[in-house]
Amino acid sequence: METRVQISILLDFYGELLTEKQREIMNLYYNEDLSLAELSEITNTSRQAIHDILKRCHKMLLQYESKLKLLEKEIRINKAKDAILMKLDKLQNSMGNADIIQLVHEIKEQVMNEI
Amino acid sequence: METRVQISILLDFYGELLTEKQREIMNLYYNEDLSLAELSEITNTSRQAIHDILKRCHKMLLQYESKLKLLEKEIRINKAKDAILMKLDKLQNSMGNADIIQLVHEIKEQVMNEI
Repeated sequence: METRVQISILLDFYGELLTEKQREIMNLYYNEDLSLAELSEITNTSRQAIHDILKRCHKMLLQYESKLKLLEKEIRINKAKDAILMKLDKLQNSMGNADIIQLVHEIKEQVMNEI
Repeated sequence: METRVQISILLDFYGELLTEKQREIMNLYYNEDLSLAELSEITNTSRQAIHDILKRCHKMLLQYESKLKLLEKEIRINKAKDAILMKLDKLQNSMGNADIIQLVHEIKEQVMNEI
């Protein structure tokens, strides 16, 4: 069973593939914690229709992930980034030359911000 | 105008979102260089239908990229990887300690293979 957090993350990855209305309803439900009743009132849509949209979109997000695996890839890359950054820390701590320390610092910034 | 190569790359990213038949036809046309006539014969489908499938899938791939931007992200990450690897080369060449050289080597392997 996926948690609300996982669905919220999948929404970040695949939200653009939903319609604007679907994305808005999913966002309000999973990120803003609105209830079905509140969503129904705000969007002027029946509770049953909101329930159906949430269920269908939930399924679509899981299908997109099963096909493109962007979340799976992100988790793998984040593990690799952590391992790389740990090694760079070790490198930085083992050296005295200021130029080299600066270079390692630059590499770390690039790994953290651009990968 | 997108080149055949660009469409072929988009097919790598988003092919799973097409149906099996669409993916097969796109693959044979863009990666295996089969002609419309050959595709028509192999798939037992009219040339006009093949033409329509190619056109529709081409458009779908561009739409997926405009929404998810996976190719754009890949290009950006590859530039960062190149820059990081160049800095690691510089680091490796400026040091004499065998342990540190080994560590830099490991980081490079990880950037190359896991990011």
